[in-house]
Amino acid sequence: MRQTLSAPSMRLLYIHADYMEYETRKPTAIAEEVNDIDKRRRLEEVLVSFIAVENQDEGKIEEIANQAANDISETAARVGAQRILLYPYAHLSSELSDPETGVSTLRRLQEILRERGLETYRAPFGWYKSFKISCKGHPLSELSRHIVAGEEKTAPKGEERFIVLTPDGVEWRGRGRD
Amino acid sequence: MRQTLSAPSMRLLYIHADYMEYETRKPTAIAEEVNDIDKRRRLEEVLVSFIAVENQDEGKIEEIANQAANDISETAARVGAQRILLYPYAHLSSELSDPETGVSTLRRLQEILRERGLETYRAPFGWYKSFKISCKGHPLSELSRHIVAGEEKTAPKGEERFIVLTPDGVEWRGRGRD
Repeated sequence: MRQTLSAPSMRLLYIHADYMEYETRKPTAIAEEVNDIDKRRRLEEVLVSFIAVENQDEGKIEEIANQAANDISETAARVGAQRILLYPYAHLSSELSDPETGVSTLRRLQEILRERGLETYRAPFGWYKSFKISCKGHPLSELSRHIVAGEEKTAPKGEERFIVLTPDGVEWRGRGRD
Repeated sequence: MRQTLSAPSMRLLYIHADYMEYETRKPTAIAEEVNDIDKRRRLEEVLVSFIAVENQDEGKIEEIANQAANDISETAARVGAQRILLYPYAHLSSELSDPETGVSTLRRLQEILRERGLETYRAPFGWYKSFKISCKGHPLSELSRHIVAGEEKTAPKGEERFIVLTPDGVEWRGRGRD
């Protein structure tokens, strides 16, 4: 248990959506600066990745961002999403990183995904936002992950053995349930 | 840590929504039976409570359902929601109860809230569902909770001291951050 607490990690909730739109409503004390174009956005046929960055370790940002990018790009391909939205979501964790690590990690993650040629957007960090989402409802349209820096996937590739779908769409993969 | 693991508990994510609509798409192996009227629903001005029931202990269903009912009814009143939707959401936890405990707890929770005169609906358990939600985006429109059976709130009542709002809407309350 304690070991996990000190390792940088990330919790993700993916929703494969017909559309997602959001609008910034009110900044918090640590809101990042946002230009007008990023204050509201609507995307169609999108994989929304709700993300909480946990346990700050600035030296590990590159590592955790790369692991997350791998998983996000694999998932987007698997469900056939045309674009990706990274959406900061503190409610997924009770062990959040400090805000600086959080926003740096999300920015780096966006860069990596774009470098790989994926159309990737990022919702502003530290703002209260309204949003509208339409979740498709197919068995892979809601998935969750706990990604820990340095932990490689041990399960074999190939969907049949790799994924076990359970009630309400929980997945078991690799060493345990995420 | 270990103590918490054996106590029945519940994770909740509240979203105060302009509307929420859902439709059952596909049953899983443990889907509950649903009549036609409950297969799809649209609610306006609703507090959506996404819920994961953790750590089965059938003897404690009454206790955890009552604690959750208290928190849900307080929150609905505080944000001014006109009705409540209980929505099973396994992705909030990695320590789910067995399905029987989960569905029994949700049913009992609905009964308690209705007995208290609150207009309360429940989305079907064990089904893949599509949904559309519009989150209002005010500072209290997204809140999360971890309710543990037998743990009373230790923080004083009164919004000023009881709630600390932080970036992305995380709340600290009582003994720790949930």
